[in-house]
Amino acid sequence: MFEAAELGQKVSKHDFEAALPELRAELLAAQRALKGTRSPLIIIISGVQGAGKGEVVNRLNEWLDTRDIQTHAFWDSTDEERQRPYYWRYWRSLPPRGSTGILFGGWYSAELIDKGYSAESLNVIDTDLNRIVDYERMLAVDGALILKFWYHLPRQVQRRRLQSLTESEHSYWKMAARYSGRKKEYAKFCSLAERIIRATDIGLAPWHVIEATDRRFRDLTTGQILLQALKRRLQQEGDGPRAQGPEAGFEPLAVTDQATILDRVDLSQSLEKEVYKRRLAGYQERLNQQAWEAYRTRRACVMVFEGWDAGGKGGAIRRLTAAIDARIMRAISVAAPTDEERAHHYLWRFWRQVPRDGYFTIFDRSWYGRVLVERIEGFATDAEWQRAYREINHFEEMLTEHGIVVLKFWLHIDKDEQLRRFQERERVPYKQHKITEEDWRNREKWDDYERAVNEMVVRTSTEYAPWILVAGNDKRFARVEVIKNVCQRLDRALHGG
Amino acid sequence: MFEAAELGQKVSKHDFEAALPELRAELLAAQRALKGTRSPLIIIISGVQGAGKGEVVNRLNEWLDTRDIQTHAFWDSTDEERQRPYYWRYWRSLPPRGSTGILFGGWYSAELIDKGYSAESLNVIDTDLNRIVDYERMLAVDGALILKFWYHLPRQVQRRRLQSLTESEHSYWKMAARYSGRKKEYAKFCSLAERIIRATDIGLAPWHVIEATDRRFRDLTTGQILLQALKRRLQQEGDGPRAQGPEAGFEPLAVTDQATILDRVDLSQSLEKEVYKRRLAGYQERLNQQAWEAYRTRRACVMVFEGWDAGGKGGAIRRLTAAIDARIMRAISVAAPTDEERAHHYLWRFWRQVPRDGYFTIFDRSWYGRVLVERIEGFATDAEWQRAYREINHFEEMLTEHGIVVLKFWLHIDKDEQLRRFQERERVPYKQHKITEEDWRNREKWDDYERAVNEMVVRTSTEYAPWILVAGNDKRFARVEVIKNVCQRLDRALHGG
Repeated sequence: MFEAAELGQKVSKHDFEAALPELRAELLAAQRALKGTRSPLIIIISGVQGAGKGEVVNRLNEWLDTRDIQTHAFWDSTDEERQRPYYWRYWRSLPPRGSTGILFGGWYSAELIDKGYSAESLNVIDTDLNRIVDYERMLAVDGALILKFWYHLPRQVQRRRLQSLTESEHSYWKMAARYSGRKKEYAKFCSLAERIIRATDIGLAPWHVIEATDRRFRDLTTGQILLQALKRRLQQEGDGPRAQGPEAGFEPLAVTDQATILDRVDLSQSLEKEVYKRRLAGYQERLNQQAWEAYRTRRACVMVFEGWDAGGKGGAIRRLTAAIDARIMRAISVAAPTDEERAHHYLWRFWRQVPRDGYFTIFDRSWYGRVLVERIEGFATDAEWQRAYREINHFEEMLTEHGIVVLKFWLHIDKDEQLRRFQERERVPYKQHKITEEDWRNREKWDDYERAVNEMVVRTSTEYAPWILVAGNDKRFARVEVIKNVCQRLDRALHGG
Repeated sequence: MFEAAELGQKVSKHDFEAALPELRAELLAAQRALKGTRSPLIIIISGVQGAGKGEVVNRLNEWLDTRDIQTHAFWDSTDEERQRPYYWRYWRSLPPRGSTGILFGGWYSAELIDKGYSAESLNVIDTDLNRIVDYERMLAVDGALILKFWYHLPRQVQRRRLQSLTESEHSYWKMAARYSGRKKEYAKFCSLAERIIRATDIGLAPWHVIEATDRRFRDLTTGQILLQALKRRLQQEGDGPRAQGPEAGFEPLAVTDQATILDRVDLSQSLEKEVYKRRLAGYQERLNQQAWEAYRTRRACVMVFEGWDAGGKGGAIRRLTAAIDARIMRAISVAAPTDEERAHHYLWRFWRQVPRDGYFTIFDRSWYGRVLVERIEGFATDAEWQRAYREINHFEEMLTEHGIVVLKFWLHIDKDEQLRRFQERERVPYKQHKITEEDWRNREKWDDYERAVNEMVVRTSTEYAPWILVAGNDKRFARVEVIKNVCQRLDRALHGG
């Protein structure tokens, strides 16, 4: 979930200053236009320590007209607050229609984080998260525009940042002694944060995870997302009474000109033929044994393969199926749904294929079609594919809770490599059946797909079922990478650690 | 929540048989029409033991075309099921679009009930309930029409029913030995059931609580609600792609010609003047002491007064305010919202008035305006007032969790008594300010209000904040009744028991 915020994204001073005048003018205009509407704007600023949440808030106050902004921090509660129900303080801090409230943390409070931290199981905060969802949904359907920002820092960056903060006399962090014991608990905090974000990332009030390493990137991106959301809302207001679907209001991730997650895949990686053969054989033998061990110990496994056309899914899958005994394994190629399947919710046909304890199921394409091809071809409405992220996360959570190992591979190649493979397929007789007009048409939509894949990875890469992005330009490298990951995950699942 | 299902409602054999031919013909026609749509129909049959859930299912199969119905009971899970994630069995049982699935209990499973039973705190089932809501929401926005029936029996009726069931050889109840230990735990079961129903009573998949004492009433009402819901859905389908609001699909409670909750209030009750004076003085003295004790022990109290125009709210409130020291009490008369209040969510102005620990707040009219006057005058849209029940239940739950005692009174009079009082107000000079044209206009909408009040009581009478219906034709009786209830509730809150 935080992959997209560990890309080392930066904005140069020059670009920042060049973008600023227009952004500020547009933000001010949008803020003025908002005044005439029924929408209060609620901005929640959260994130890891040292990310500079205070700086962001100052920046927003600098860019916007402060006469229409109220900023609230929820430090230690006052006795007035303690003597009333917990949400009283949040109701107090809500902006009226047309105005803006900037809330430090908002109802994603220090108390909630503390509770999650000290609990043995994160289940204990589910009731609180549930209440948050109800609260935000209630405000949103009443007209509120809710923007939730989560500022993330990679571990090393945070360590350096906190180091320099402790040396400064005046940082908030210094004041807040309560957190001082926590600086080493980075992983635990991220884990908790992921659960909170996942549970509360609803279409009506989505999260925006922003990399905070570079201050200019952080602030500019925040401003752009804010502007985008305001413009969309003003547009909707202009359209008259909003005929919004159940989960309308969903804001797609801000797309900047910055590097994407896919860009970070190092496609130059490759393997010599001899090395490939040796490694593959080694992993296949290991996988065969692991599969039998999984069968004996009743662990099931689901593997999902998605990737570009001609990305090498089929080849990678065959290297797996060759290793696992066919009696305990099933490979499913997902094509257009049958009539019977179409008569059900789109997840129904995948639920049918969920393996029993001890069995393996490999999906060549999967439920992710909903947020890829169905999104791009318009087979699913906006509301449908937008709510699918959450539905898919729930689905995979249930699989994992039951003990199923869920592995998801994205086989990545670049556009040139795809062209080369397409042409080869057209040239080589026994490969001709693998290339169709549709493949060429899809290729024209490369940029749309790229955006969709990035968003898919960000919104559905979870602790329990992370995406594994495989560099696929070299087929040998990709195949070994896949089977290696399968072996490692199975090893952890079967033997812990 | 179960008040409306303890009215002793009956249908005579004659009426039943008279209604049947048309109902069955219409049900069959609606079922046939459903086949052409994108809506699967999911009927969940739940309720207390002995309510006759099996009989209802048999009846539905008798009335409908069984070729398009699948009935599922979720008894002990099969090994196929146990070896897959928990929801797998429910996905298996979903009907395709256009067809009907009748589910015994559905995902409101024996496991869930067991878990709630054996837990110390009902919080432990919140995660499960949350998941149910997500599941139903997902199916509903995908087009499913979900009808959830809860069959209720008053305690005495259930006892008799179970007695005769144990004497029969072939009842399901006899087979299900697991429940045999539970027959005495009626209150606990109702408590658990209320929590489950409250948490999962969403607009997209609302509950229908039906009194199961009389078999003909039970079955006929079920059929009528089913028909109503089908007709509405078919109508929407006819309107083209459904432009449904966030919580559209809400089915108002079936209104039958049967007695309502309000009808059950015995308006003939009255008090002699001397008795009244003596009792009132006694309770007032007691309340004065209790209020100070509450102040010392930091218990706050919220009292809500709703009722017919001229129902005697003001008089009842004055008897309370006379007893409680003004320094720890505030009475708030709720009129049209101010500009500032209008610029917020409708609950905002009530949150402002939530008392601090140890203080009393009395609301003369309240947030219930949302589901009464705002509903009937059209100030709130259907989606707005329909989702308000759930919002209000959450609101009052938060108050209660914080330790606030919440008391809600409906001051009930009949139409004749209102007329008498209106005329008196017009006649007596010092009462003339209390009667306006609007009162007369409201009076014309008596039937609409009556329906709204009944629905309000059913949907918002909770264990933690039950409605108290006060017989108000005799003012003296009503005033004593109110203050008596206040004293008793405070007594329980302050001293337990």
